[in-house]
Amino acid sequence: MSLDNITQSLAALAIQAQGVVSHCTTNSPATWREALESAPSAPKSFELLKTLVYKPKTAKTATPVPLIIVARESTDVISGAVGKKLGLKDLRLGSEDLLNEFFSLDKNSLSPLALTEQTYPKVTTAIDSSIISSDSLFAVRALASDSTLFLSGKDIHAYLRRLESKESPLHEIDFEALKTEADAPAGQAKTAPAKEKKDDGKIEGAIQIAIGIKKEVDFAAWYTNVLIKADMLDYYNVSGCYILRPWSYSIWEVIQDWFNVRIRDMGVQNAYFPMFVSAKVLEREKDHIEGFSPEVAWVTRAGNSELEEPIAVRPTSETVMYPYYAKWIKSHRDLPLKLNQWNNVVRWEFKNPQPFLRTREFLWQEGHTAHLTKPEADVEVREILELYRQVYEDLLAVPVIQGIKSEKEKFAGGLYTTTVEGFVPTTGRGIQAGTSHCLGQNFSRPEMFNIFVEDPNDPTGQGKVYVWQNSWGLSTRTIGVMVMIHGDNQGLVLPPRVASVQAVIVPCGVTAKTSDAQRKAISDRCEALAAALKAAGVKAKADLREGYTPGFKFNDWEQKGVPLRLEIGPADLAKDQTLSVRRDTGVKAPLPLADITTSVPQLLDAIQADMFRRAQDTYFSRLRVVTRWEEVVPTLDDKCVAVIPWCEEEACEDDIKERSAKSAEPTDERAPSAGAKSLCIPFDQSRWPAIEPGKTKCPACGKDAKRWTMFGRSY
Amino acid sequence: MSLDNITQSLAALAIQAQGVVSHCTTNSPATWREALESAPSAPKSFELLKTLVYKPKTAKTATPVPLIIVARESTDVISGAVGKKLGLKDLRLGSEDLLNEFFSLDKNSLSPLALTEQTYPKVTTAIDSSIISSDSLFAVRALASDSTLFLSGKDIHAYLRRLESKESPLHEIDFEALKTEADAPAGQAKTAPAKEKKDDGKIEGAIQIAIGIKKEVDFAAWYTNVLIKADMLDYYNVSGCYILRPWSYSIWEVIQDWFNVRIRDMGVQNAYFPMFVSAKVLEREKDHIEGFSPEVAWVTRAGNSELEEPIAVRPTSETVMYPYYAKWIKSHRDLPLKLNQWNNVVRWEFKNPQPFLRTREFLWQEGHTAHLTKPEADVEVREILELYRQVYEDLLAVPVIQGIKSEKEKFAGGLYTTTVEGFVPTTGRGIQAGTSHCLGQNFSRPEMFNIFVEDPNDPTGQGKVYVWQNSWGLSTRTIGVMVMIHGDNQGLVLPPRVASVQAVIVPCGVTAKTSDAQRKAISDRCEALAAALKAAGVKAKADLREGYTPGFKFNDWEQKGVPLRLEIGPADLAKDQTLSVRRDTGVKAPLPLADITTSVPQLLDAIQADMFRRAQDTYFSRLRVVTRWEEVVPTLDDKCVAVIPWCEEEACEDDIKERSAKSAEPTDERAPSAGAKSLCIPFDQSRWPAIEPGKTKCPACGKDAKRWTMFGRSY
Repeated sequence: MSLDNITQSLAALAIQAQGVVSHCTTNSPATWREALESAPSAPKSFELLKTLVYKPKTAKTATPVPLIIVARESTDVISGAVGKKLGLKDLRLGSEDLLNEFFSLDKNSLSPLALTEQTYPKVTTAIDSSIISSDSLFAVRALASDSTLFLSGKDIHAYLRRLESKESPLHEIDFEALKTEADAPAGQAKTAPAKEKKDDGKIEGAIQIAIGIKKEVDFAAWYTNVLIKADMLDYYNVSGCYILRPWSYSIWEVIQDWFNVRIRDMGVQNAYFPMFVSAKVLEREKDHIEGFSPEVAWVTRAGNSELEEPIAVRPTSETVMYPYYAKWIKSHRDLPLKLNQWNNVVRWEFKNPQPFLRTREFLWQEGHTAHLTKPEADVEVREILELYRQVYEDLLAVPVIQGIKSEKEKFAGGLYTTTVEGFVPTTGRGIQAGTSHCLGQNFSRPEMFNIFVEDPNDPTGQGKVYVWQNSWGLSTRTIGVMVMIHGDNQGLVLPPRVASVQAVIVPCGVTAKTSDAQRKAISDRCEALAAALKAAGVKAKADLREGYTPGFKFNDWEQKGVPLRLEIGPADLAKDQTLSVRRDTGVKAPLPLADITTSVPQLLDAIQADMFRRAQDTYFSRLRVVTRWEEVVPTLDDKCVAVIPWCEEEACEDDIKERSAKSAEPTDERAPSAGAKSLCIPFDQSRWPAIEPGKTKCPACGKDAKRWTMFGRSY
Repeated sequence: MSLDNITQSLAALAIQAQGVVSHCTTNSPATWREALESAPSAPKSFELLKTLVYKPKTAKTATPVPLIIVARESTDVISGAVGKKLGLKDLRLGSEDLLNEFFSLDKNSLSPLALTEQTYPKVTTAIDSSIISSDSLFAVRALASDSTLFLSGKDIHAYLRRLESKESPLHEIDFEALKTEADAPAGQAKTAPAKEKKDDGKIEGAIQIAIGIKKEVDFAAWYTNVLIKADMLDYYNVSGCYILRPWSYSIWEVIQDWFNVRIRDMGVQNAYFPMFVSAKVLEREKDHIEGFSPEVAWVTRAGNSELEEPIAVRPTSETVMYPYYAKWIKSHRDLPLKLNQWNNVVRWEFKNPQPFLRTREFLWQEGHTAHLTKPEADVEVREILELYRQVYEDLLAVPVIQGIKSEKEKFAGGLYTTTVEGFVPTTGRGIQAGTSHCLGQNFSRPEMFNIFVEDPNDPTGQGKVYVWQNSWGLSTRTIGVMVMIHGDNQGLVLPPRVASVQAVIVPCGVTAKTSDAQRKAISDRCEALAAALKAAGVKAKADLREGYTPGFKFNDWEQKGVPLRLEIGPADLAKDQTLSVRRDTGVKAPLPLADITTSVPQLLDAIQADMFRRAQDTYFSRLRVVTRWEEVVPTLDDKCVAVIPWCEEEACEDDIKERSAKSAEPTDERAPSAGAKSLCIPFDQSRWPAIEPGKTKCPACGKDAKRWTMFGRSY
């Protein structure tokens, strides 16, 4: 249905929609709200409307009748309770395919306006009854993810009522009541709203600056909310591009500084190559370019002049650099050549962008080295991978597993790819966290970049050696993974080693009765403490902002993930102590000020170690050995990684992906159903029982298994 | 004349030119050679051919008859001697206009092939006689700066001979003989070739790896040669883009690290904004964009899809950032907001590119800050400018003068621009080295980005304050200026504070007779010395490469500009000393190894200070007070800056530029004639006599002078 049709339908009902607002493509409530708030023509005050599509369990042969729920974005829809009420069994969120089949729309374009005389009879429809009585103006997707119109609750109701028939009644559901019933223990229904209970244990006087969406309930929306509320990131008016604010960029700087020192020790030098690459050069390596060409951004015009030849913005720099490697490497004495650059690259993805994880422009480092021998190249591949492991585990407190990629998943054009593979427990998905490739001689051979030296070991002096090359990269994705793993419903949780503020000192207990002298004494003590900690190498900050309550400050710094809060009030002053509060566990403990410069660094070390250990325990607990095919999908559905004794054949991997996708139906609104792919073949196979050659079989195809391989859904 | 015509003409002479080679646009012998060497279809061995155009002094009314000289690139053409020989007075290199008038070509496209039956009779032509007898193949511009064909000396001669007539004979000149005559003192002609004399004072055993072109003779070519031979930079196959190799990039890293510490102390935070900006946003500030729009690179396509709207690559980030400043700044408590980013920007200049100085992509930092009051903004503008001065003077040993730009030269769209202004004595040109702008409220006002806060000083609470903004940037141009000022005919000269190798230790005096034990003792001592110096904080390196002579190593490190060489031979070993050789002065002195960890740092400090002092003395000696208009152009021609008591009116500046351009004719092949512009109005006016209001007049227009202002030719 086109926008014109919509307007006509609305006009027929005497509904006057406020003008359609165009904005950048949005894929979550947070980004949608963000986009509308920055659109000048949007109304000042509005609520988001959500449209959920559920599929009830039906016999395989029966045509499914989806359930459409139109609700306020803030309404908790508990599918079990709804199903019970409407007599629908085992409701699950519909797949993209289902949405496409019924409405030819994706979930970010769907709204009640997709219900028409054609579609309405084929589905069951329910409306959140609180909408009908609401005074709010609702933002309604204009059947596109980049355009919105605004309707009152009454109008939405009227629109749906007009489609109603005896066969297809419009169900009105009071979700709030339904939720209270579902939440309450038996016999206590409606006596104690769940909401209040949750506030127990909150800091007294704290203002609630909630993340608004629970990590467990809507992970994608939670993620973007955390990023925005922690001042990590802002959305930008070019889709797929984001602003890295100082709170996140400083993490990147920590990683840069740490990594630079290590690679310099390995003899790697930093350099800078141009970001433009001519079409001719870019297309030199066919296998390589195949993976990138659909995503390459092309500059075709400068000022008002069309360029004679379009010029690509680098998606990676192999083809930018290697013609010069051929020029610079003239003798084995020029080897190894080890260069690295910190730069921006562009991959114009058409999939949904996600901050840090999948963005059109991103920051990374790319190392490119050339060696005389394969063993030398092999050693470096693993040295770099070990540094990547340390960046994740030691700096970001994010556990990873080192391994090799399958042939299907390796870097196109390379010889083999090693990876540090992360895992997001909340979604049960693997995430490729950093890769170190051995390119072999694929780029150096004569028909490619022709990078060779005379063989120093050939006595005839005639032999040539084509150099062995590696490339390796780590991107700002690091930051996204860290947020996903450690963040909670209060916001960001930063590991101390990457936090730009490790300890925040907040004056407390100041009331109207507090004398000016007392007030000053507390402030002074806070400043002195910050200075002492700084001198001891702790990134400390005293938050002496006027006009904000301690509660506001607590929440502000909690949201921003500062690892440690130190409170100083009149009582603490008297006892020469401070109350420490850990961000990761919420544990409070008084600390004597006398030895604060040793106790705080120790506490920060403990937080760092605990955060890592907990995350690693969780990761490991989700690695599940699977030896029968039937267990694969249930394992994935349990948010686990299936570790299978695998045949390592590409056809089998394709098959696993296809078969596991078919059977998957997600319960998460925003995670599309997806098949499993191989995440990596871990280097450390000793974790699992030895594979018996010729005896242990691949559970997917029945052929001989080679190595234990992690299969999972992934980012 | 088209390429087809050329081929026909050549064919008529039975000359078979080797196939035309296309390459990127080149603007100097160095880049031309570079381009040909990397073109696969070019012959392996060739010489460059140069075609010089001179204008003899003629009566103003007479039609000028230019002299065309066709010579080997390596031939020194001494215009005085040539003029004498041909009876032509006061030969000066012709302007671009002259070339255009006669051949419709620029100097980078000109070759003997431009001489045709139409043009040849209008000029005088001379050929380097050594070409005629040469066996070399010559690279000849195919009347374009990006295409070359190859001819033998005989063929070139034949081509010109065919055009010869009684009225227009082809002169054959033996430039080598002419030069010897010119060089030799009276009475000694031809007895002692000048060449040999120049080698005096060279290090014994040194292999000559000459820069090839003298700084004083052909500055532009010298500059690119130094950059390439010092491994600072390489040419790239996208015109106007260059590769920053580790030897130059490491200088940028030193600047980054130094600057980051200082601005962090000022409360500036680093961040990263996207490099893409939509057309709509970019064009929001008309004045601002006017300066950039002709140079903006546009992405119009991604993969195979045309973008709905073209997206610009940032030429600078005011319009990228300020919409978000408007969003983030909600109260005076959010002020000041001080962000900085290190990034790449693109300005697709159509003028001749020059490495570091004018490139299409370049690296810089751009700081953008917002303040509540103008005085606060004013203070910061100067604080940053002072940091820029320190980067130049304290790190790069490059003297600068701080001042304010004229209205004509200030940043478009800003309120005022302050600058650190450098000077390249060899060409006598000023160079804008870094700028710190106060933007005033031009970007914050309501019709622009609308960045305001409630006025905290307004008791009614109704008042708004539009924020005061600054922006400031420093680019990799820093590196180019340093090279131009300190480099010499041996190559690069690095100030110790930015050198990635400050002292290189070279084992010497090892001969065939040296025993293995002695050899090892020397090597070990070199390594031990390097280790001791590193421990003392000196960036030291022992050059123990096998298979290279000390002479080769000396030259190699001299070319690369390492500030200090320490030689250790058997005699030094015996005396427990090392021979130190300063790169900047060539001064040699033995240093006892006993206190080497204090003497070397002291020596490096002395080198740093001396390099700066010498450069500053030169700069200051070129500031010439000019109070009469007639002195302006001669001052510029003397490679000086004219400091005039100026009226500060824009019309007067336009007039000065125009009038000074007309009278200028350069002697440098590659520096186009140019008028003078105002470089800056120095903050420190006390250097010159006080201007008497109403009495001191502007020498250009006769109006009342306001302040002493530096006028000069510039980059």
